Amino acid sequence: MKLTILGCNAATPRNNAQTTAQLLEINGQLVLIDCGEGTQLQLRKFGIKFARIQHIFISHLHGDHFYGLIGLISTFRLLGRTADLHVYGPKGIKEIITLQLKLAKSWTDYALYFHELDSDQSCLVLDHEKFTVETLPLDHRVYTNGYLFCEKAGKRKINTTAVADYGVEVADMENLKQGKDIQLAHGDWVKNSVLTFDPEPPKSYAFCSDTAYKPDLAELLKGVNCLYHEATFLEIHQDLAVKTKHSTASEAAQIAANAEVKQLILGHFSSRYPDRNEFLVQAKQYFQDVHLAEDGKGFQIS
Amino acid sequence: MKLTILGCNAATPRNNAQTTAQLLEINGQLVLIDCGEGTQLQLRKFGIKFARIQHIFISHLHGDHFYGLIGLISTFRLLGRTADLHVYGPKGIKEIITLQLKLAKSWTDYALYFHELDSDQSCLVLDHEKFTVETLPLDHRVYTNGYLFCEKAGKRKINTTAVADYGVEVADMENLKQGKDIQLAHGDWVKNSVLTFDPEPPKSYAFCSDTAYKPDLAELLKGVNCLYHEATFLEIHQDLAVKTKHSTASEAAQIAANAEVKQLILGHFSSRYPDRNEFLVQAKQYFQDVHLAEDGKGFQIS
Repeated sequence: MKLTILGCNAATPRNNAQTTAQLLEINGQLVLIDCGEGTQLQLRKFGIKFARIQHIFISHLHGDHFYGLIGLISTFRLLGRTADLHVYGPKGIKEIITLQLKLAKSWTDYALYFHELDSDQSCLVLDHEKFTVETLPLDHRVYTNGYLFCEKAGKRKINTTAVADYGVEVADMENLKQGKDIQLAHGDWVKNSVLTFDPEPPKSYAFCSDTAYKPDLAELLKGVNCLYHEATFLEIHQDLAVKTKHSTASEAAQIAANAEVKQLILGHFSSRYPDRNEFLVQAKQYFQDVHLAEDGKGFQIS
Repeated sequence: MKLTILGCNAATPRNNAQTTAQLLEINGQLVLIDCGEGTQLQLRKFGIKFARIQHIFISHLHGDHFYGLIGLISTFRLLGRTADLHVYGPKGIKEIITLQLKLAKSWTDYALYFHELDSDQSCLVLDHEKFTVETLPLDHRVYTNGYLFCEKAGKRKINTTAVADYGVEVADMENLKQGKDIQLAHGDWVKNSVLTFDPEPPKSYAFCSDTAYKPDLAELLKGVNCLYHEATFLEIHQDLAVKTKHSTASEAAQIAANAEVKQLILGHFSSRYPDRNEFLVQAKQYFQDVHLAEDGKGFQIS
């Protein structure tokens, strides 16, 4: 599982500081999370084969999280896309996109599906062959969801030595990978666990932006491998965080600590801070394995 | 009068090749023409004090000409704008912008005026103290206007030597600039033309994008100082130009020649041509003073 930060600046894009967008590679699938203005250019800049994206998850309808979506949808058509595209986001997102296509007398040559969300409870929104996605209801000025991405367990791994020792036939390999016990040629049964190893444990990634400090979020995030949590402000601007329904670095770190996640990434930084090191310092009061998002930075999630 | 190209790529933005947007400085006023995705970043990149923009002219509702508008409008609010903003464009543009503001529970703290256009005749859309703007009806797949920007004549210039010789009083200088004759202290009248020089002749700029070859456009462009005309294709793709209602470099140059403009700028280039020099070569068959648009390039219009 690999995460690439395409943008992590709050509110407006600046030179070399794009608004929120992330690319998640999960079990070989490419997923886009949020899509601030210029995201299609960030995808090109970082050499991502973005035609492979089939699922886009939008957290909320503030511009710094979705103004790039219509451009990406248009560009997909111009590049000759035929594969289905699924967009998940708050109610209203379909109207915004289709109004613009209609007024441009434009269309998509690929099937474009909107999955509009309006529940305030966490729910499963995608059950893909390779992974699942659940919403994480957040507390912001407009209806907002974070998303929890969980790999599905891979197949069991063949113990090549044991398989050779027992003389298992090639035709049985797929059954072994699926966890089945095997009957040998002379009739004896062998337990699957003797012939295979456990697959890699599935990994999970949680995206939480934008949100006020929401302590009960920790319940939904229990033990995730990697948490991205917004940290728009430092402690000195706690009042602004409350007023605008954003979080501080300390609050993000408290969520990470309470949820006992493995790794924390901070992002959605306000432009008012020229030096971002203080975000690390303040977060480390509560949680050690913390990193700062940065345009173009990749995180291997393990 | 100065024109800055912010983007001139057709269809989709590429690395270092933004879609259409231009900044025109006319008699001290800043005007934005079209606003492709990422225009606000181009304005920052080229160090333009874009808070000074009070008028935005959108040619048509294809994304490569206006997807950056909502982001710019939002950023103006975040930067604390209070000055009025006027947006001119096809019917529907108001609905696109206001729908997005409404769904974001957002607003503008400045007055935002939409001037929606639907006439197929050239008409005066802005009569500003310093300049006028008329539409140039174009022929494209959706309703499209170019725009003709004309400076208003400046005041007459004082002939300081003559004024001293005749002993004209300081109180009369403004009357002189306004073209009035002057009565001297001893009662004699002096003609204005004796005491002043003609002001700089007013200049004009025409923006024509996107459009199929439209020969009768030349009538509306007669003698303009500078014409920007789209040249999406080279002659080899004449069939595509007809099919998609775009122009070739040769066609743009024929318009310039027939209209007897002083200078021609070509832009809106298809990404299919790695070398743009051929646009110049083909245009020069018909018109000599021709230039290629380029992101960040400035043109002094004289």
